[in-house]
Amino acid sequence: MEPAPVTEVTGRVAALQGELARKEVSLALIRQAADLYYYTGVLADGWLAVSPSHSPLLLVRRPQRRLLEAAPPWPLAFYGDLKEIPELLNTFGFAVQGPLGLELDVMPVGVARRLQKIFPQMSQQDISPLIRQQRMLKSAYEITQMRRAAAILDQALEDTPRLLKPGVTEMEVAAALEYRLRLLGHQGLVRVRTWNLELFYGHVLSGVSGVEAAYTDTPSGGPGFTAAFPQGAGLKKLAFGEPISIDLFSCVNGYVVDQTRMYALESLPERAWEAFRIIEDLYRLFEELAHPGVQPGDIFQRLWQEVKDRGWGDYFMGRGADRVSFLGHGLGLEADEYPLLTARFPYPLATDMVLAFEPKFFLPEIGMVGLEDTGRITPEGVEWLTTTPREVMVIKR
Amino acid sequence: MEPAPVTEVTGRVAALQGELARKEVSLALIRQAADLYYYTGVLADGWLAVSPSHSPLLLVRRPQRRLLEAAPPWPLAFYGDLKEIPELLNTFGFAVQGPLGLELDVMPVGVARRLQKIFPQMSQQDISPLIRQQRMLKSAYEITQMRRAAAILDQALEDTPRLLKPGVTEMEVAAALEYRLRLLGHQGLVRVRTWNLELFYGHVLSGVSGVEAAYTDTPSGGPGFTAAFPQGAGLKKLAFGEPISIDLFSCVNGYVVDQTRMYALESLPERAWEAFRIIEDLYRLFEELAHPGVQPGDIFQRLWQEVKDRGWGDYFMGRGADRVSFLGHGLGLEADEYPLLTARFPYPLATDMVLAFEPKFFLPEIGMVGLEDTGRITPEGVEWLTTTPREVMVIKR
Repeated sequence: MEPAPVTEVTGRVAALQGELARKEVSLALIRQAADLYYYTGVLADGWLAVSPSHSPLLLVRRPQRRLLEAAPPWPLAFYGDLKEIPELLNTFGFAVQGPLGLELDVMPVGVARRLQKIFPQMSQQDISPLIRQQRMLKSAYEITQMRRAAAILDQALEDTPRLLKPGVTEMEVAAALEYRLRLLGHQGLVRVRTWNLELFYGHVLSGVSGVEAAYTDTPSGGPGFTAAFPQGAGLKKLAFGEPISIDLFSCVNGYVVDQTRMYALESLPERAWEAFRIIEDLYRLFEELAHPGVQPGDIFQRLWQEVKDRGWGDYFMGRGADRVSFLGHGLGLEADEYPLLTARFPYPLATDMVLAFEPKFFLPEIGMVGLEDTGRITPEGVEWLTTTPREVMVIKR
Repeated sequence: MEPAPVTEVTGRVAALQGELARKEVSLALIRQAADLYYYTGVLADGWLAVSPSHSPLLLVRRPQRRLLEAAPPWPLAFYGDLKEIPELLNTFGFAVQGPLGLELDVMPVGVARRLQKIFPQMSQQDISPLIRQQRMLKSAYEITQMRRAAAILDQALEDTPRLLKPGVTEMEVAAALEYRLRLLGHQGLVRVRTWNLELFYGHVLSGVSGVEAAYTDTPSGGPGFTAAFPQGAGLKKLAFGEPISIDLFSCVNGYVVDQTRMYALESLPERAWEAFRIIEDLYRLFEELAHPGVQPGDIFQRLWQEVKDRGWGDYFMGRGADRVSFLGHGLGLEADEYPLLTARFPYPLATDMVLAFEPKFFLPEIGMVGLEDTGRITPEGVEWLTTTPREVMVIKR
């Protein structure tokens, strides 16, 4: 077990305290798993209480024994029922009045209503923008974890040429890669923030499966093999001459990277090669543009313009109304972090932001052709964290 | 692809309409993935509008083309932005006033606030109790899916005697079983309703790993192998004479079953056998008690009394403050459905409820000893859906 370094965690809370002071939030109660882990280095059925001017307190319902052993950097207070929290906070010297900061982008209304009864004199305020902005910038420790996630993904894909054969189903390939990732240390669960954004490892798609639009806000969807979870690999068999895409998350110590690679058995139609060459050009353009201080919206417009100028706009990032509104998304403890590479994302790129760039074409009757890499913004531009060679691997026998 | 039968879906909505009428809810908007699938048979970035007196309408942002092909039983209306929904509803003849029914147990405050702006004249009301009560009773179709999930779990476990060897890690066993389940048709994603209730396939634990309490509301926790997701299989190696528990979810066509089985290499300490014999007695007692009309609380008390009378209360369902408050939980499209086998669950058992029964002992320095099965309540009592023989499989070489 490798816990997050204590100085990491204490530094994060100090920065949050500064933001809470600036926004005049008297008390923040943090509960969501990814946020709680970020600010404590542990997970519990519990809440981290943070006020601008007071040492934080970790309120834990369970597991109590285990939390004592884990020794997070914050004092622990145990409770049995949520109702006990105001008095516990009082005992520890917190002021239980004024604005109450909560993660209102993810907290269910039922929980917020319960808290309103427990803290009737406090007005609930959404602190998730503060948290998401803070988490958008990654530390050296966090980037190391993402490099590790990228490294096991690259290792898992070493098997791919052996796995891809005509007649093998997408599902068989997906299952084999999932198995390999698990053995290499993928934690399994990949966290997301957005309500109803569902995922599981990622998508292994071939030929026309690649153009099945998603029911979630992701460029590729895929059929899956059940109407109850209609995404990702289905029962379609791999065939000669079709684009095969392997779009997988990898997750080590909580940190997620996202990568898409292309494969083909024997050959690809010329139109798929054309699409792939444009993707390579878009990568070059992105690398030219993605520097600290640049607005994501400007990059988004420039890339889209390039695609339209070449006459490929109809096929980029989905088809018609099923097109997604982004070309990339942030990554970290969640797969849908800030920044977003959209037309109007409000913050400029900055050093140590980490995001996935995923230009993708959806070609009717052919399939999906695109790539995805996770990159860190540095003063010199993008440094890619995902490392698998960026080519269409054509498997010949 | 096997969609849910149309009559299933139409019958469910008709029943919901009756409940909405009874509760005087003018309009319900259903969005959460499990609920949306339950009432439509499809998944989409969209909302199902249901009113007591009007044909339902499925409002879809994406994927539009795919939804037209899937042909759900309800008329479709496409939108680009949430703001367009009130006018669309008007066009289709819905009354956009009075109480607005929403899934407030799962809907984030941010989404509810957005809806409040879009429907300023409507008061938001929680319809999740109606939905959860309805979903608590399973149809023959649903029970068939759960039997299929149980069957592949049983098949996956056929490999276990070969997998369990001294020196093999919990994680290696877990990864192999996950792989096998996937190839047999496990959909991967297992849905839960409770905020921050995290899971991934389940828990493979051995010896002292079994007594690591959970950070989620589950009896067993386990160490995992990272502080970022500290549950389930860790890097501990299997050893002779320790209880090994394999607690896995299986999920087919959306429907989840939950089963725990015990294994040992060569032998188990006498105290573990004693615990196991009590577990077997608790199963017999549960089978005697679990009939339609019986209060879950009465069963809960009777089983707890039995454990205390035998002097094992200190070890049952967790230790001290880390104990869980239930002996079982409902299953269906989510792993945490109604009914709950707790002291005060408000509804009596009824025919076609499906729940997991999971009596478990946590023995210091030995490990976890317990079983779990998914059963359906019938007029004659429990009918178990999970089918793996209920024994400690002792592997001798």
